[in-house]
Amino acid sequence: MEHHHLPEKPNEQVILELITYNREKYDMFTSSDVDVLLKNLSEERINWINLDGLNVSPIIEKIQAHFCLHSLMVEDILNDQRPKTEEFEDYLFVTLKMLYRIEGAEIDYEQISFVLGSNFLLSFQEKEGDLFNAFRERIRLDQGRVRKKKADYLLYRLIDIIVDNYYNVLDNIGEQIEETEECIRTDTSMETFKKIQQMKKELIYLHKALYPLRDAIGKLVKDESSFIQEENVRYFSDVYDHTIHLIDSLETYRDLTSSLMDIYINTQNTRLNEVIRLLTIISTIFIPLTFIVGVYGMNFKHNFPEIESEYGYPIVWMVMIAIAGSMIAFFRHKKWI
Amino acid sequence: MEHHHLPEKPNEQVILELITYNREKYDMFTSSDVDVLLKNLSEERINWINLDGLNVSPIIEKIQAHFCLHSLMVEDILNDQRPKTEEFEDYLFVTLKMLYRIEGAEIDYEQISFVLGSNFLLSFQEKEGDLFNAFRERIRLDQGRVRKKKADYLLYRLIDIIVDNYYNVLDNIGEQIEETEECIRTDTSMETFKKIQQMKKELIYLHKALYPLRDAIGKLVKDESSFIQEENVRYFSDVYDHTIHLIDSLETYRDLTSSLMDIYINTQNTRLNEVIRLLTIISTIFIPLTFIVGVYGMNFKHNFPEIESEYGYPIVWMVMIAIAGSMIAFFRHKKWI
Amino acid sequence: MEHHHLPEKPNEQVILELITYNREKYDMFTSSDVDVLLKNLSEERINWINLDGLNVSPIIEKIQAHFCLHSLMVEDILNDQRPKTEEFEDYLFVTLKMLYRIEGAEIDYEQISFVLGSNFLLSFQEKEGDLFNAFRERIRLDQGRVRKKKADYLLYRLIDIIVDNYYNVLDNIGEQIEETEECIRTDTSMETFKKIQQMKKELIYLHKALYPLRDAIGKLVKDESSFIQEENVRYFSDVYDHTIHLIDSLETYRDLTSSLMDIYINTQNTRLNEVIRLLTIISTIFIPLTFIVGVYGMNFKHNFPEIESEYGYPIVWMVMIAIAGSMIAFFRHKKWI
Amino acid sequence: MEHHHLPEKPNEQVILELITYNREKYDMFTSSDVDVLLKNLSEERINWINLDGLNVSPIIEKIQAHFCLHSLMVEDILNDQRPKTEEFEDYLFVTLKMLYRIEGAEIDYEQISFVLGSNFLLSFQEKEGDLFNAFRERIRLDQGRVRKKKADYLLYRLIDIIVDNYYNVLDNIGEQIEETEECIRTDTSMETFKKIQQMKKELIYLHKALYPLRDAIGKLVKDESSFIQEENVRYFSDVYDHTIHLIDSLETYRDLTSSLMDIYINTQNTRLNEVIRLLTIISTIFIPLTFIVGVYGMNFKHNFPEIESEYGYPIVWMVMIAIAGSMIAFFRHKKWI
Amino acid sequence: MEHHHLPEKPNEQVILELITYNREKYDMFTSSDVDVLLKNLSEERINWINLDGLNVSPIIEKIQAHFCLHSLMVEDILNDQRPKTEEFEDYLFVTLKMLYRIEGAEIDYEQISFVLGSNFLLSFQEKEGDLFNAFRERIRLDQGRVRKKKADYLLYRLIDIIVDNYYNVLDNIGEQIEETEECIRTDTSMETFKKIQQMKKELIYLHKALYPLRDAIGKLVKDESSFIQEENVRYFSDVYDHTIHLIDSLETYRDLTSSLMDIYINTQNTRLNEVIRLLTIISTIFIPLTFIVGVYGMNFKHNFPEIESEYGYPIVWMVMIAIAGSMIAFFRHKKWI
Repeated sequence: MEHHHLPEKPNEQVILELITYNREKYDMFTSSDVDVLLKNLSEERINWINLDGLNVSPIIEKIQAHFCLHSLMVEDILNDQRPKTEEFEDYLFVTLKMLYRIEGAEIDYEQISFVLGSNFLLSFQEKEGDLFNAFRERIRLDQGRVRKKKADYLLYRLIDIIVDNYYNVLDNIGEQIEETEECIRTDTSMETFKKIQQMKKELIYLHKALYPLRDAIGKLVKDESSFIQEENVRYFSDVYDHTIHLIDSLETYRDLTSSLMDIYINTQNTRLNEVIRLLTIISTIFIPLTFIVGVYGMNFKHNFPEIESEYGYPIVWMVMIAIAGSMIAFFRHKKWI
Repeated sequence: MEHHHLPEKPNEQVILELITYNREKYDMFTSSDVDVLLKNLSEERINWINLDGLNVSPIIEKIQAHFCLHSLMVEDILNDQRPKTEEFEDYLFVTLKMLYRIEGAEIDYEQISFVLGSNFLLSFQEKEGDLFNAFRERIRLDQGRVRKKKADYLLYRLIDIIVDNYYNVLDNIGEQIEETEECIRTDTSMETFKKIQQMKKELIYLHKALYPLRDAIGKLVKDESSFIQEENVRYFSDVYDHTIHLIDSLETYRDLTSSLMDIYINTQNTRLNEVIRLLTIISTIFIPLTFIVGVYGMNFKHNFPEIESEYGYPIVWMVMIAIAGSMIAFFRHKKWI
Repeated sequence: MEHHHLPEKPNEQVILELITYNREKYDMFTSSDVDVLLKNLSEERINWINLDGLNVSPIIEKIQAHFCLHSLMVEDILNDQRPKTEEFEDYLFVTLKMLYRIEGAEIDYEQISFVLGSNFLLSFQEKEGDLFNAFRERIRLDQGRVRKKKADYLLYRLIDIIVDNYYNVLDNIGEQIEETEECIRTDTSMETFKKIQQMKKELIYLHKALYPLRDAIGKLVKDESSFIQEENVRYFSDVYDHTIHLIDSLETYRDLTSSLMDIYINTQNTRLNEVIRLLTIISTIFIPLTFIVGVYGMNFKHNFPEIESEYGYPIVWMVMIAIAGSMIAFFRHKKWI
Repeated sequence: MEHHHLPEKPNEQVILELITYNREKYDMFTSSDVDVLLKNLSEERINWINLDGLNVSPIIEKIQAHFCLHSLMVEDILNDQRPKTEEFEDYLFVTLKMLYRIEGAEIDYEQISFVLGSNFLLSFQEKEGDLFNAFRERIRLDQGRVRKKKADYLLYRLIDIIVDNYYNVLDNIGEQIEETEECIRTDTSMETFKKIQQMKKELIYLHKALYPLRDAIGKLVKDESSFIQEENVRYFSDVYDHTIHLIDSLETYRDLTSSLMDIYINTQNTRLNEVIRLLTIISTIFIPLTFIVGVYGMNFKHNFPEIESEYGYPIVWMVMIAIAGSMIAFFRHKKWI
Repeated sequence: MEHHHLPEKPNEQVILELITYNREKYDMFTSSDVDVLLKNLSEERINWINLDGLNVSPIIEKIQAHFCLHSLMVEDILNDQRPKTEEFEDYLFVTLKMLYRIEGAEIDYEQISFVLGSNFLLSFQEKEGDLFNAFRERIRLDQGRVRKKKADYLLYRLIDIIVDNYYNVLDNIGEQIEETEECIRTDTSMETFKKIQQMKKELIYLHKALYPLRDAIGKLVKDESSFIQEENVRYFSDVYDHTIHLIDSLETYRDLTSSLMDIYINTQNTRLNEVIRLLTIISTIFIPLTFIVGVYGMNFKHNFPEIESEYGYPIVWMVMIAIAGSMIAFFRHKKWI
């Protein structure tokens, strides 16, 4: 089982955070000592423990012990995993990919896993930094519904934020496609080609992340898990619709990108044809003429009447002009020039 | 959830309209004040409220409050959504894309959402103008069945009108394909290529709109919703058949468009081959001849018998004609000319 | 609903025909007055009313009234429809495409709709002429089982005849593919290409007709409709197997056609390569030689020893022959000639 | 129903054969008179009637009458059919394609149909000769389990022999693919291309035979037919697994063949590039040089200092060598030579 | 049934090994005599018999007899088989492909079959050497859970090790893809192409192994076999998730490889265009100039004023420079140079 580990980041520090809240109260604890946090868990509140960084095994072991987490699930949290949902006796397990995009750079994927219990939610992230800061603030200020709801609604909100960010990334690719489409007919440099290939590659990776994401959330909706209250299923169902919408967009963008490739290749071919046409026109006009002038450059001493004739030179010019003219007329007729 | 908003149109005015009718009576109210309209709702009639423009939130909030609309659903109405059907406790929700095509221009997509209750139908459109004017007149004049039926039949008629317009758009593409096919072998300009690409792109977007449309209407038919009377299911089923027929046509057009691309590329290649063949023929005939005349243009002073010979010049001509002739015979044999 | 009408044929006449039969008796009436025919319907016989031409609405309205046909179904009969089967309370509705192929011409599609009641069968055709004449004769002469069976067997026989004609059309395409395959390597004219494209197009349209046909007949078999007696289900099941067989053949032909395209393109490329190779060989041999003879055509007056030398001319010839010879050896080595 | 007949072979003789056996006894009768055979049927033994040649209708009619075969089934036996399984009241009907391959030739398909009753098995083959001779000998010598089992086991054995022969044919194609792959980079002749196309075509036809074969045998396994004893289902299930394995191999070979096509095309392109590169190199070096020597071949009488100069000729040579040298250096840099 | 045998390795020796263990005890026996091993089987322990080499039939017959193995299953063990799971009355049968990859070489596939009984596990391998040595050591040292669990857990661990090795192989291909992507734009040699083709081929074979593997393990999970304890199903379910993850990666790599092909082809085309552009530029500039100098190389004796004129020569130079200059300007404008 020691294979496909997530990439190691030995020097990164682990960040541990506990948010406990109910309608009346809200507290947040940050500590590098997991025991301190576990002491602050509160039975009558929702407890959200977030862990950034997965390479400090003692912490994870303590959490595992405290919440009786199944060893297979912990392995799934620590290793690169296909997005999935799995129900255990005492909790529900969801693992997803969270996307980041720093403007212009490649998309960055981070695995995030959730364990939802009756009154707690654990979230495990590979590295520091996430998309939830604005939402943490909303909890603190008691905005929206979250303080009035249970832990399953908290899970819904976090997944919703993650899925919403997929929209940003996809929209960004959509804009790139439009930009490229505008410039592709004038600019057939290698750069354009690289850009299209880069988009294609990103869509391939998004495809790999999105389809299992849809399945994982779909399972949440259809399995009628006891950890999700019936009144909240509609929220997960809404996220599920979003993932299907995302997949539709993804497939549309794949089609559009492959259209872009067609345009690129066609533009390149058209240019090549143009080049070859020019070569042919010039060659076809001048090669016969060069032959003619070659003829009268010969040094035969006898029986070479044209050379001696009075109007040989102007006649040759007229013949050559006639040949060139009819060639040009022929090319005009063929619409080559 | 603030992500994929529909495009903002800040200056557009909101248009509110209420049509209430039953077998005996018909009234229509237009107002920018939603309270006025809500007062005119009539329990024993069918009430159709239509809203054009989604950017004035107080109006939408009032409608939401009056009809107790679920907040997730209102978000779906306001944001770009995949066509879908969802049943709530007190109403049925349907959201679709309505197509417009101004001759020659790209297809324009507008999201339209319906909320069907026991005796009311709400319709939310992004912008002013729709496909329903002729139908409104039919209601007023009591033509057809609509005044004798409930709100679900009204919903059917509106969806049917929207789906019918998909036929217009697809037929239009079908005609374009036929036109292009006729001219493609004579005109391989970049214009033709752009036209094919444009069609391909439109079919990609139609694909994105049509498949979920089919699913949404299929769900209406299969779910046996209590908001649709059993006697009217057959009507929705008929619209469902139309969406499948549309998808068949769409796929046929996709195949035909890709055939067009094949023809385009083949025509281009054939032309390129022709050009290169001409270049080869001219070069192959004249390059050897030019070499020969070059030989007798050399200035060697000794041992250059041809130059001195009596019939050198005419013999060279005969040799050259023989070479050119056999070349031409060879090309004839190869069917190049 | 006024959209996708079948093409109008205003001048065509409507042909009405009634065949009534049982084991003992057989009668046929032809009339342009529908009332006359309806009077001749016989309760204890099978009544087959056939209508060619759909543009005379009074006739259709009378039939609709007499048999209480649903308005949606009549619309489906009159408009271009996806092949489908629908069961109503008092009858079963089947609509299909009937194929015609006049030798060498494109395939012609005609919509035919059937309404099967307890003791009657209505058939609606777009235009005059069908595939049933030989079968009508068999009924009259009491050949085969049809006079001993009910109206559902009559429907089976008609559908079977229609489906059998699909075989003819597909077999014809199969023969064309074989013919083309034989001549494709010698004849790469534009004509061959057009022929392949034409086949591809016909297969696209057949695809559009065949898949829904299979679904429609499959529904007949699986729905256990009360209008089809259990002992006759096996017959429809046999037709259903035929449609699947047809689809297999269709897909095989699509694969073969795309193979043909590959062969065509490859042959074209091979020819282009040949042309370019010839150009290269001729140019590569003669361009250097032309340079050499050019050198000795220069008019330098001093220090130009070769010109003056005794054996300059023959030596130059030997050098040139050596160059040409080694070039040819090189091409031989490369297997270009 | 008179359409897709199997190809007629009017002169071929019909061969009729009856093998009856049980644990103790074994008899074989060959006769051209069906009545003789039918008399030898034995109630307490397994009776296997094999018929080679389907064009003598009296024989088939007698068999049909004796075993009460359904007319639709007899039509299926006589006409080209999609492999399928159908259960009738008194027997089970299976029709398949049997493959032959004479080394180097195209694959030959023969339709074979089985009718399995409680104590008899009928087999109908299109033409003389089959794969069962070794197996007939095994029955006679009482090798293996067949004499201890019922007619369903006999059917299993025959189908198993047929399916096993698919392996031979597919393995043969696999070997061809490997052979072609080895020689494809050195030999890009039209022959190689034809070979690949031939393999592709054979795989298309195998595809058409294999998928319905899998469905037919799968139906045997899943339908729990009363004609197959429960203890023998596992045998049919084993054949079913073989058909799925065959399909896997088929798809693998299709992928490999299309890879071969890619390699072929790439090799061709690489060669074309090489040719064009040679042309470009020779032309680019010599065309400018030819121009230079042309300059000094001009006959201007005044102001033409180079001609008169002492070292004109050697300087021109040096210039030309410099140009040619830098061209070659440029090509080296570009890695063209 | 004698067809698709696994490749014969007549000289390879058979290796027989028995490991018996429970919580308290552990014993291992190696022998070439199967009877010795069978005597050491222990009722109250888990017995794992491993056989390397399948070509010594007496051994297999003895094992078959001792464990009452079904003859069809033994055939499946001995012949090349699609990965599958089959439940028999007294044991569960699983057959898979085990992958080896020696660095740089092609992937090697070995068939491994398992027979799981109530307290025994048989494993049959084609040849010596497997992936289990480290695991055998873990059993001996009583590390992990295996000594505390039943034979089904042992089966899980072995399958898990095999599936884990698929990750290694796939990751290796992933790295190769990245490497190739980096060098593909600078190095378009045939080598790169061969590398891409090799990867494609490996992915085709992996595809053939992985999809049935997923089905086989999925059947283990879903069939609720009595040979797998309920508490252990989750383990097999985890392996099942891994196979799905592997398939996702495989499809991603297939997409990436085909992207690589696109890049390769595009780079080749870009290079060809460059070559042809150079040819055209050189030809277009010098061919007209060569014609001009040819004109003044003619030997006309009368009416050839330029030759006689004072400044003919320098004027011709100026004309030629003007022509060349405007050509170059034209190419600059076209962005060809």
